Amino acid sequence: MPDMSELRRPRVGHIQFLNCVPIYWGLMRSGALIDVDLTKDNPDNLNDMLVAGDLDIGPISLVEYLRHHEELLLLPGLAVGSDGPVLSVHIIHKGPLSELDGRPVALGSTSRTGALLARLLLEQRHGVRPEFYRCPPDVPRMMREADAAVVIGDVALRALYEAPQQGLTVTDLGAAWRDWSGLPMVFAVWAARRDFAAAHPGQVKDVHEAFLRSVALCLTELDEVAEATARWEPFDAATLAGYFRALDFSLGDRQLEGLRAFAARAASIGETPALPADGPLLFTG
Amino acid sequence: MPDMSELRRPRVGHIQFLNCVPIYWGLMRSGALIDVDLTKDNPDNLNDMLVAGDLDIGPISLVEYLRHHEELLLLPGLAVGSDGPVLSVHIIHKGPLSELDGRPVALGSTSRTGALLARLLLEQRHGVRPEFYRCPPDVPRMMREADAAVVIGDVALRALYEAPQQGLTVTDLGAAWRDWSGLPMVFAVWAARRDFAAAHPGQVKDVHEAFLRSVALCLTELDEVAEATARWEPFDAATLAGYFRALDFSLGDRQLEGLRAFAARAASIGETPALPADGPLLFTG
Repeated sequence: MPDMSELRRPRVGHIQFLNCVPIYWGLMRSGALIDVDLTKDNPDNLNDMLVAGDLDIGPISLVEYLRHHEELLLLPGLAVGSDGPVLSVHIIHKGPLSELDGRPVALGSTSRTGALLARLLLEQRHGVRPEFYRCPPDVPRMMREADAAVVIGDVALRALYEAPQQGLTVTDLGAAWRDWSGLPMVFAVWAARRDFAAAHPGQVKDVHEAFLRSVALCLTELDEVAEATARWEPFDAATLAGYFRALDFSLGDRQLEGLRAFAARAASIGETPALPADGPLLFTG
Repeated sequence: MPDMSELRRPRVGHIQFLNCVPIYWGLMRSGALIDVDLTKDNPDNLNDMLVAGDLDIGPISLVEYLRHHEELLLLPGLAVGSDGPVLSVHIIHKGPLSELDGRPVALGSTSRTGALLARLLLEQRHGVRPEFYRCPPDVPRMMREADAAVVIGDVALRALYEAPQQGLTVTDLGAAWRDWSGLPMVFAVWAARRDFAAAHPGQVKDVHEAFLRSVALCLTELDEVAEATARWEPFDAATLAGYFRALDFSLGDRQLEGLRAFAARAASIGETPALPADGPLLFTG
């Protein structure tokens, strides 16, 4: 009989947002789902579960990764980011960003990395210090109470189409970061818990490879993913295909450079601990 | 923009037991998973969720189906049963079944249909009236406190190999029912809530067809399912393949006849309401 501790499928997280449907498609079509115990949830809950050890491997927002990087190993080659416009991480605003000094800016409670990126951009690039507050990601309500709102995900994607009709400006934070830094932005990464990886390196290797295969597969079938997903979403297949293509699911050298540049700026204002000089610590199989 | 009430994936249940791994494999390999909001859980919780309306479509143990048949539509062509030995629904006993009159018999708390089938067999076929009590499905403990134990699922499958070494007899309840009635036994069926089917007949049709396709697909790949599953279970691939082949995932005329015969016997002792003469009520697309 095999060692029973090896007889538990690894507990893996999955973000139940539109931006991760292609990855789920790949996990399904490649057959990888049969080898994982998958928990689907929103990013906030998944962040907490990975940090608490209730998941072994999972996606985690970049900010939460930086806050807990010593307990985690980053899985190379896999992320949710963009090299330019991301279409789903926005500041929505009434007037110019440079006029937000001292003004209320609502941060959608589902956003961690997007909210911090917005703050860095406003303070360090536009030289303004708004009054930030957190609240549920409800754009009409946010814009009644604030001069600008930061939202992500499906809500942000919808706002891209609706906000201009209401006289609001949408600043894409992926595009703004690229203009500012010249680099891709990484919003979420995948990581394994270091204790789990030490005990089960083979399982982490298998899951990592399964994710890489799944992403490679879904990238060849994005039109099919968009077609299948459009049945259940208030966006048509063409819109979804454009959205999926705007996303960068890779984590290579340029993305890691972008990650380090963001980490350095976040650490400079004390929002996250500094990464070590040779960081982040990657899972190397 | 489409009707938003159609824009929610149907909430579908999945039994997280070995006997349903082939069905999950089929849902994955056929791509059906992308169109459902799947909840994996144990049979008891899934029974409760379907009856409470927290699932739209799902597996339900035959006994719970019979108790709630007026609220449900049975999906034809799909079940978990057996036409002879099922290998995973057992009475485990010390002496002959005919000597259990007045003796304690432990009913594993995860079993509904198996427990009732055991009672019917003992009372109506063997003419004994044991003292039944419910308890957690822990075979060694059950056999310390009782003369016989009814267990299902992974626990029962393991007991098939371990009980004989401990001088215990295993009576396979699928085989015993077949000897008694001449018919297949149906342990679990799939059903849609009638209110959901009335509001979303097209969704029920799609999910039903997806399940039928998934079962047809998995039956052609049972050795692969067994191979993949053996990585995570204390059974080897050959044992699992034999187990999967013992299961009858169909619900055709003979299985429905078996279901009606069981329902009539269960109703005769007041355990379930009687099915109508033309029952059960099938979803007909």
